[in-house]
Amino acid sequence: MIALYTALITGAIMAGLQAASAAPPGGEFPSKVPVPADNPMTPRKIHLGKQLYFDPRLSLSGDVSCDTCHNVAGNGSDGLPLSFGVLGRVDRPRHAPTVFNSAFNTVQFWDGRAKSLEDQAKGPLLNPIEMGMPSSGAIVKRLAGIPGYRREFARVFGGKTPITFEHVVQAIATYERTLVTPDSPYDRYLKGDKNALDKSAKQGMHEVSDLGCASCHAGAMFDNPGLPMGTGWFRKFPMIPTNPTCATYVREYHLADDPGRFDVTHKQSDEHVFKVPSLRNVAVLAPYFQNGSVGSLRTAVRVMAACQLGKTLTGLQTTNIVAFLNSLTGKFPVETMPHLPETPDSTSMMQVAKLQQNQRQLN
Amino acid sequence: MIALYTALITGAIMAGLQAASAAPPGGEFPSKVPVPADNPMTPRKIHLGKQLYFDPRLSLSGDVSCDTCHNVAGNGSDGLPLSFGVLGRVDRPRHAPTVFNSAFNTVQFWDGRAKSLEDQAKGPLLNPIEMGMPSSGAIVKRLAGIPGYRREFARVFGGKTPITFEHVVQAIATYERTLVTPDSPYDRYLKGDKNALDKSAKQGMHEVSDLGCASCHAGAMFDNPGLPMGTGWFRKFPMIPTNPTCATYVREYHLADDPGRFDVTHKQSDEHVFKVPSLRNVAVLAPYFQNGSVGSLRTAVRVMAACQLGKTLTGLQTTNIVAFLNSLTGKFPVETMPHLPETPDSTSMMQVAKLQQNQRQLN
Repeated sequence: MIALYTALITGAIMAGLQAASAAPPGGEFPSKVPVPADNPMTPRKIHLGKQLYFDPRLSLSGDVSCDTCHNVAGNGSDGLPLSFGVLGRVDRPRHAPTVFNSAFNTVQFWDGRAKSLEDQAKGPLLNPIEMGMPSSGAIVKRLAGIPGYRREFARVFGGKTPITFEHVVQAIATYERTLVTPDSPYDRYLKGDKNALDKSAKQGMHEVSDLGCASCHAGAMFDNPGLPMGTGWFRKFPMIPTNPTCATYVREYHLADDPGRFDVTHKQSDEHVFKVPSLRNVAVLAPYFQNGSVGSLRTAVRVMAACQLGKTLTGLQTTNIVAFLNSLTGKFPVETMPHLPETPDSTSMMQVAKLQQNQRQLN
Repeated sequence: MIALYTALITGAIMAGLQAASAAPPGGEFPSKVPVPADNPMTPRKIHLGKQLYFDPRLSLSGDVSCDTCHNVAGNGSDGLPLSFGVLGRVDRPRHAPTVFNSAFNTVQFWDGRAKSLEDQAKGPLLNPIEMGMPSSGAIVKRLAGIPGYRREFARVFGGKTPITFEHVVQAIATYERTLVTPDSPYDRYLKGDKNALDKSAKQGMHEVSDLGCASCHAGAMFDNPGLPMGTGWFRKFPMIPTNPTCATYVREYHLADDPGRFDVTHKQSDEHVFKVPSLRNVAVLAPYFQNGSVGSLRTAVRVMAACQLGKTLTGLQTTNIVAFLNSLTGKFPVETMPHLPETPDSTSMMQVAKLQQNQRQLN
């Protein structure tokens, strides 16, 4: 079902070529995104998916879009500790991951509960605290009330019922697969431009390999060693909460409050277990961790060293690792904005008036 | 202070040229926007203004930008009856007007309380229910915590204190002045393409002139007869609430609940008085009126006829007027998205965590 993902092996090849010095901790940015066989990418589907991604009418209140929390203009996240959904609601303490390069995640969500971008997109749409749509039928009905969408879905999907919930998430996932950030300084370095990393970043690169960071943050995306799509790569976090430095961080940043993957599998061994997140663009994606509790990259690096490796870093080590992490910031594409189809005689959106009346009474 | 706005006289000239038939109700789309002498437009200022316009960090909760309510992808409004501000709050019942062509408004807001786009921008930023920033100083402080903005403001404004509240609104207003929609079918018609309007739209055009709509919806933007910037063109609405048809609409759509400009001047004669809104793009800007209570353009046209002119339209008249109003939809520009500068070590945005903790307890 998932196309073979050959580019993921590039990392291993590069590592082999450079065997004389320490192997770089991750591989080169993939030249292709993995695309499920049953949802091929086409320009028209990308166009529709972009409209849907930016359309707040996909939420109960009509003011929250995918882009609200996964802000394309803001490196693909909202830059906040947690996120605000419909009516200012805040869900359990999980920070919104970036949409950029999410096409490479082998599983989605912090707890890995979705095996594809298509499955992921269903979650927030129907979550009462996020986009709050009461049912997949309500989404279909709302879109069917917009003539521009009726035309677009018919063109992209055809058939007797062009607008279905499956088609909505297929289009959104297709747009998301275009949001990739290749050509970081690290990638240029791997391609042979030895000046793409300065001395500090190179030193940091060796630290990341030597300290053991790369045993989890592995592969081209620094998030798994090359597993097939749909296969999760998980780690307990915090791994060593008894380390005294880690214990301090755990208290200060509430790092052990979230049961993590236990919520999905209900296995004791999955308590505090999370998907290993990518290090790509990490320097421009503060705040950090599943609960977005740490604002500083330096602190995040120290927390990881203490809680996952049981190590206390020197100031210089931290500086060098941060320099290396900065070299993983890729080129963000220049995106054009979609033009959302109008709701003429917009009776479907007029239902929001009742919600707004309730909210006014809270002032 | 305001540059002369010569293009506004085009309408009068065109009307003269076509004196043989009924004069078209408004003039051709202006070729230039009026620009205040103390805030000249430059490419760099537009670039900065666009970043600020789309940046949710200009709100208390970090999730509401100018674009949230004046959605550039959505014809410049949010398409909702009212708007949601920070924490899902809803302000008094005033519908968000479109940002497109707002550069041509001689005054801003439904009650005309701001004389320029610069002044307008200050309102929502500091309104506790809209973007909720506690003070202009808090805005400056938050932006000063973002290195990318420090650089941009220094480049655009220079001087010892590049980041000031005045500079913030000057940049935002400058970006807004780029958001114009020329080249509607009506404009092509005025330029001599007689097929740009079909028979129904032409008939509607004559109705708009003959019924008296154009006595208020006058000039190139159909919102004033060519007044200088800063001068309001206001009308009472509903004007004839005693008309039985109007009275029904007033009850159904709560049209007489808003004191309008009375809130600004405290003059009895300004009760229920509002700025005359432009008819440009009106067909793609549902819902209608100051309280966004009417979802259908047909209904809006009938309400206006009954409440402002004391007339009851036939079905055909309404159809023709709607066809004409559709011909006023211009070309929306294809916009590229800005790239928002990062908040590295984002302590300023970490303050939002407290707000989010409070919101979680409401679930």
